[in-house]
Amino acid sequence: MSRLQIHDVGLRDGLQMEKTQVPFDTKIHWIRTLIDSGVDIIQAGSFVHPKLVPQMVDSDRIFQEILPEKPRDVVLSGLVLNEKGLERGMDCGVELFCMGVSASETHSLKNTRMTTEQALAQILSMARTAEEEGRSVQVSVQSAFGCGYEGPIEKQKVLAIVDAYLNAGFRNISLADTAGHADPGRVTELFDSVRELDPRVETACHFHNTYGLGIANSLAAREAGVTCFEASFAGLGGCPFTAVAGGNVCTEDLVHLFQRMGLRTDIRLDPLVHLAEEVSEFFGRELPGSVYKTGPIPSSPPSEP
Amino acid sequence: MSRLQIHDVGLRDGLQMEKTQVPFDTKIHWIRTLIDSGVDIIQAGSFVHPKLVPQMVDSDRIFQEILPEKPRDVVLSGLVLNEKGLERGMDCGVELFCMGVSASETHSLKNTRMTTEQALAQILSMARTAEEEGRSVQVSVQSAFGCGYEGPIEKQKVLAIVDAYLNAGFRNISLADTAGHADPGRVTELFDSVRELDPRVETACHFHNTYGLGIANSLAAREAGVTCFEASFAGLGGCPFTAVAGGNVCTEDLVHLFQRMGLRTDIRLDPLVHLAEEVSEFFGRELPGSVYKTGPIPSSPPSEP
Repeated sequence: MSRLQIHDVGLRDGLQMEKTQVPFDTKIHWIRTLIDSGVDIIQAGSFVHPKLVPQMVDSDRIFQEILPEKPRDVVLSGLVLNEKGLERGMDCGVELFCMGVSASETHSLKNTRMTTEQALAQILSMARTAEEEGRSVQVSVQSAFGCGYEGPIEKQKVLAIVDAYLNAGFRNISLADTAGHADPGRVTELFDSVRELDPRVETACHFHNTYGLGIANSLAAREAGVTCFEASFAGLGGCPFTAVAGGNVCTEDLVHLFQRMGLRTDIRLDPLVHLAEEVSEFFGRELPGSVYKTGPIPSSPPSEP
Repeated sequence: MSRLQIHDVGLRDGLQMEKTQVPFDTKIHWIRTLIDSGVDIIQAGSFVHPKLVPQMVDSDRIFQEILPEKPRDVVLSGLVLNEKGLERGMDCGVELFCMGVSASETHSLKNTRMTTEQALAQILSMARTAEEEGRSVQVSVQSAFGCGYEGPIEKQKVLAIVDAYLNAGFRNISLADTAGHADPGRVTELFDSVRELDPRVETACHFHNTYGLGIANSLAAREAGVTCFEASFAGLGGCPFTAVAGGNVCTEDLVHLFQRMGLRTDIRLDPLVHLAEEVSEFFGRELPGSVYKTGPIPSSPPSEP
């Protein structure tokens, strides 16, 4: 099994619903802390019109600031939704382009004003362009485990999109549980089916903790061979275009769990915990993460207070 | 595999740390709602000196009120810590006596003023008395997965207590993660080891969600053959005698997950969700449960608001 990767999407999925605008310098500081922790991929922003998601207004500048200073083994990813966004992402040096199609027609229409079929054609074209320019691409299926508007999503609908990606040569595929409807059984089933389509597929998972199942789903994903885990520091998150929003799986909680299992013990939990504390202070509220409140499970007797 | 059972411990473990005294009538109403939901076992209180845990002051009266009216297939359990408590529990008709020993010397001393060895001798004697009087008994190992004071607890220490229970003929055994230190790997390992001691053992699990792992641990326990799951409505809970306290696994979240897996679809989620709403209103704060905030994952398209 390949080494597990952590893809922190807090700067993008974590912040996009927040009404308090996070200043540029604060975002830069948060990204530097993430880099310091040793997570593998950091989603530094999305390229969407600032009228739609004001929090993402400075994505281009963030890439320009961080790219020259970051270590080579940390990848900066950016989410793009359309050709215009792709162009902006190209210009500011995005290393890994994340782009996707919703398996839910309703979600697709609300999010992109395109049907799933129209969105798929556009994404395949954009993914080709990005690859031709030498950038890495991760394609995703949003609402892969259910939709806040439509309810359950048929497995075949998800697999048809995955199949189109594979046929076009894109093997880095994320299944996103946009509404948080996944449960461990469904996670196993869907990722197993994806692997049956092509054993060479590299899968990523993206879970929201809406119904309290994010960590359990992540474990099921790992058992199904998923190697890349999308999560947000402090458990921030929630898509503004879904009906019931819940935060992303919390990065430091997931890292903490993996480390209990002997995995990715090279990632530094301390900076992640401090980041969550800072973020909680910034927004002036308690955030969903657990470990930033408790510290990690003691591996030796705690000293008396 | 036997049918999974839900043992709601909210009235006891859930309330014992709460400073706002819950009136007798409110407790009765909450228990009636739990009965209405169809959970299997309800821990209606503990028999401890009211000076130590004022919230448990009316345990005897609660049993006296509920026992005559409850359906036969719902079991009322009570926690007892000493001979005096056992006597009170006998007098008021407790059906299932829960009693246990901490695998942590420090926790044992703080909680009972006895060493683990002393506590074990006492519990075995009490368990025999209860069985002789025709009552059911569940014996437990507290701090089985780690201790807020001592940190990690050696597996052999836990298994020695389990072995003593088994040798004395007590096969209904709960492993309690008092401090919330369990992780899924450790859960699998410990319950597998218990089953190796005696394949006829009936195991229960009791997880706290301190580090966000309660649901994942419950799933691991189920895979390891555990059939009884202790949980608290609304995710209330936390032991006053441990260092870092986190709520119990949330009953309605666990039932919701099991039902997604096709298990225990006979339990009615609605009363559990309404109960959590009521409890949240009673205490005037948001509680840890997820599903009472969101409702269950829609199994069909939700109607437009």
